[in-house]
Amino acid sequence: MVKNIAVILGDGIGPEVTQQAIRVLNAIAEQFRHQFNYTYCLMGAGAIEKTGNPLPSETLEICKKSDAILFGAIGHPRFDNDPTADVRPEQGLLKLRQELQLFANIRPVSTDPALFHLSPLKSKYLEDVDFVVYRELTGGIYFGEKKINETYTEASDLCIYTRSEIERIAHLAFQSAKQRKKKLTLIDKANVLATSRLWRKVVKDLSHQYKDVKVEYLYADNAAVQIIINPKQFDVILTENLLGDFISDVAATIGGSIGLLPSASVGVSTSLFEPIHGSYPQAAGKDIANPIGSILSAAMMLEYFQLTEEASLIRSGVAWALGNGFVTKDIDPVNYYFTSTIGELISDFV
Amino acid sequence: MVKNIAVILGDGIGPEVTQQAIRVLNAIAEQFRHQFNYTYCLMGAGAIEKTGNPLPSETLEICKKSDAILFGAIGHPRFDNDPTADVRPEQGLLKLRQELQLFANIRPVSTDPALFHLSPLKSKYLEDVDFVVYRELTGGIYFGEKKINETYTEASDLCIYTRSEIERIAHLAFQSAKQRKKKLTLIDKANVLATSRLWRKVVKDLSHQYKDVKVEYLYADNAAVQIIINPKQFDVILTENLLGDFISDVAATIGGSIGLLPSASVGVSTSLFEPIHGSYPQAAGKDIANPIGSILSAAMMLEYFQLTEEASLIRSGVAWALGNGFVTKDIDPVNYYFTSTIGELISDFV
Ligand SMILES: CC(C)[C@H](C(=O)O)[C@@H](O)C(=O)O
Ligand SMILES: CC(C)[C@H](C(=O)O)[C@@H](O)C(=O)O
Repeated sequence: MVKNIAVILGDGIGPEVTQQAIRVLNAIAEQFRHQFNYTYCLMGAGAIEKTGNPLPSETLEICKKSDAILFGAIGHPRFDNDPTADVRPEQGLLKLRQELQLFANIRPVSTDPALFHLSPLKSKYLEDVDFVVYRELTGGIYFGEKKINETYTEASDLCIYTRSEIERIAHLAFQSAKQRKKKLTLIDKANVLATSRLWRKVVKDLSHQYKDVKVEYLYADNAAVQIIINPKQFDVILTENLLGDFISDVAATIGGSIGLLPSASVGVSTSLFEPIHGSYPQAAGKDIANPIGSILSAAMMLEYFQLTEEASLIRSGVAWALGNGFVTKDIDPVNYYFTSTIGELISDFV
Repeated sequence: MVKNIAVILGDGIGPEVTQQAIRVLNAIAEQFRHQFNYTYCLMGAGAIEKTGNPLPSETLEICKKSDAILFGAIGHPRFDNDPTADVRPEQGLLKLRQELQLFANIRPVSTDPALFHLSPLKSKYLEDVDFVVYRELTGGIYFGEKKINETYTEASDLCIYTRSEIERIAHLAFQSAKQRKKKLTLIDKANVLATSRLWRKVVKDLSHQYKDVKVEYLYADNAAVQIIINPKQFDVILTENLLGDFISDVAATIGGSIGLLPSASVGVSTSLFEPIHGSYPQAAGKDIANPIGSILSAAMMLEYFQLTEEASLIRSGVAWALGNGFVTKDIDPVNYYFTSTIGELISDFV
C-alpha cells in the first residue's frame, strides 16, 4: 500500500517524538511491504520564525492533498510568557483544524493490569477502564470572536454552537457507542451555559435515533471527579471543545502519563493524528520525552488506513516495552530509557 | 459573641449536611458561650417551587443583613433533565454571588498522612500537599450574555473580563501567597483565549508589587494533570470562573472524596460558606451524604469570625472521626456511618 503522509514535527518535543513514530512506521513498511511517503511541513513557533505565519499556505496545501497528517506538538515559551503577542503558534493548529474541518478529536483511554503500577491511581480504580472521548474541535469558544483592547483593560471570547455542529459529532459518538458498550455520556455545563443547554437538547433529540444507546448527562466539574474516582462507568464521552480539552487531559492521567496517549482528529477532509501531550519545552532536545503517544498515534493512523494487523503489532510492541520497564523519565525518573531507545526497541519489536 | 447567620439549606443533600454543620456549631456555641442566631431562607429548586423565583428577594435581604451565610447545595434532576427550562435553580446561587459581589471562592486543599488511604491517589502523590485555590466567582462566561434561539438551532455565551475584576481577586491571592509558601500559579488558557491573555497580562503587571512571590503560569489542561500527578508543587492557585469550577473539583479528588472539602466565598459584603460538593440528588433524604464538607465550611466561617480556637477544635473533631474510620458511604461503601451519626460524633467531640 502506498500512502502519502504530511508530517508536522512542530515545536518543543514534537520533532523528537514524531521521529520515533516514523521509525516505527518505517519498520512496519518494510515488514509489510508498504510505501509511506513523508512530506515535512512547518506549523507553529518554527513556522512563525521562518515565515511569520503559524500556518503557511504551503503546509495547508500539502495537508489537504495527503492521505493523513502526523503531527507532533505546538507551543513555545516565548509566546507563553508574552500575553501581548497577537500572532501565536497555537493559531496554526487551530487554523488547520478549522480549514480541514477536523471536527472530532477522538481519544481512547484504556488500562492494562500489567501497567497499573504506572498510574497515579490505586489499582482498584483502574480495573475495566475502557472508554473513548469525542471532543468537538472546530467550534465553541476556541473559534468565536475574540477581543482584547489596546490598553489591556478588557477582553472577551464568544462561545457559539449551532445544531449542525453538534449533530455531526454526536452522530459519530452515538455510532461508536452502538459498536461498544452502548452508553453515551454528554459532559457539559448545562446548569450555567446556554451553549451547553443546546448540546443537551440536541443530544436528547438525536437519542431517539439510537434507542439501544443509554444516554447520561454530567456536569463537567462532576465529570472530572467521576473520571478519577469511577472511570469504569464510562463508554463513550461526548463533549464540546473547551471542556473537552480539559476532560480528555484528566482522563489521560489515569494511565500514568499523558505522554502515553494518542488521538485522531477526523472531519470532512484529511485526518490528523497526534499525541495528546503538548510541546513540553523544558524537555525539548534532551531525548527524554515519551514517544509512546506519538507511536500509538501512528497506530491509529494505520487503523484508519485499515491496516489493522499492522496497527495491532505496534500496540503489542508498546505493551511489551511498557510491561518490561522500558519507559521514559516521565514514568520512572530513576530508571529510565531515552526517547530514541524506546523508539528503537519498539521498531525492532515490530 | 453573637452572630447572625443566614442558612440556605438548598436542594438535594443540602439540608441534611447543613443540619449536621449546625449541630456542630451549636455544640461550639454552648462550650464557648457564643450565641449563633440562624435565619433560614429559600434558594434554588425549593424556592422556585414555592415562589417561582430561584432567589426570592427576602432571601437576598436576609443574606445582606447577616454576619455570614451558611449554604448547602443547589440543583434538581427535573431541571438537569430539561435543557429547555429557562428558570433554573442554579440561577439563584449565581444571582446571590453577583448581588453580594462574592468575587473570590477560596478552597483549601491539604492532605493528612493518616487519611492517605481515603484518596484514590497512591500515597507518594499525596505527601506535602497543601495549597489553596482562588477561583474568580462573579465574572467570565458565567455572567456574560447568554442566547439560545426558540428553535434550538443556535446558542451562545459571552465570556468577558475587565482588568479591575482580575485585579481584586489577584491581590487576595498574592497576599495569601505572601503569607504562605510564596508561590502563585495562574491557571488559564492563554494560548487560545483573549480573556486568558488579559488574565496573564494583569497578573504579570501586579507581580511587580509582590516581588517575593514567585509567579508561574499553566494552561488549564496541563494544570489538571499536574494537580493529580504533582500536587505538592502548588501553593496558591489563581484562576477564572469556569476553569476554576473544574480545577477546584479536580483538586478535591485528591483527598478521597469531594464530600470532604469546604469553601468560602468572599467579596464586598457578607461572606458565604459552603461545601464544594453539589446537591447529589440520588443520595437526598437517605442519611448517607458526607457532612464533613459542610462541617468544615462552618469551621471556615468561625475562622472568618476570628474564632480561631473554635475552628481548630472542629478540624480536630473531623480529623479524629476520619482517622478512626467514622466515614460515610462515599468513602467506605461497606463499613459506613450515617450522615447524622457523623454529625453527632463530631459535635460530641467538640
Ligand atoms: C495546543 C492547544 C491549542 C490544544 C487545544 O487546546 O486544543 C491542545 O491543548 C490540545 O488539546 O490539542
Ligand atoms: C451549582 C453551580 C452553578 C456551581 C458552579 O458552577 O459554580 C457549582 O458547581 C460550584 O462550583 O459552586
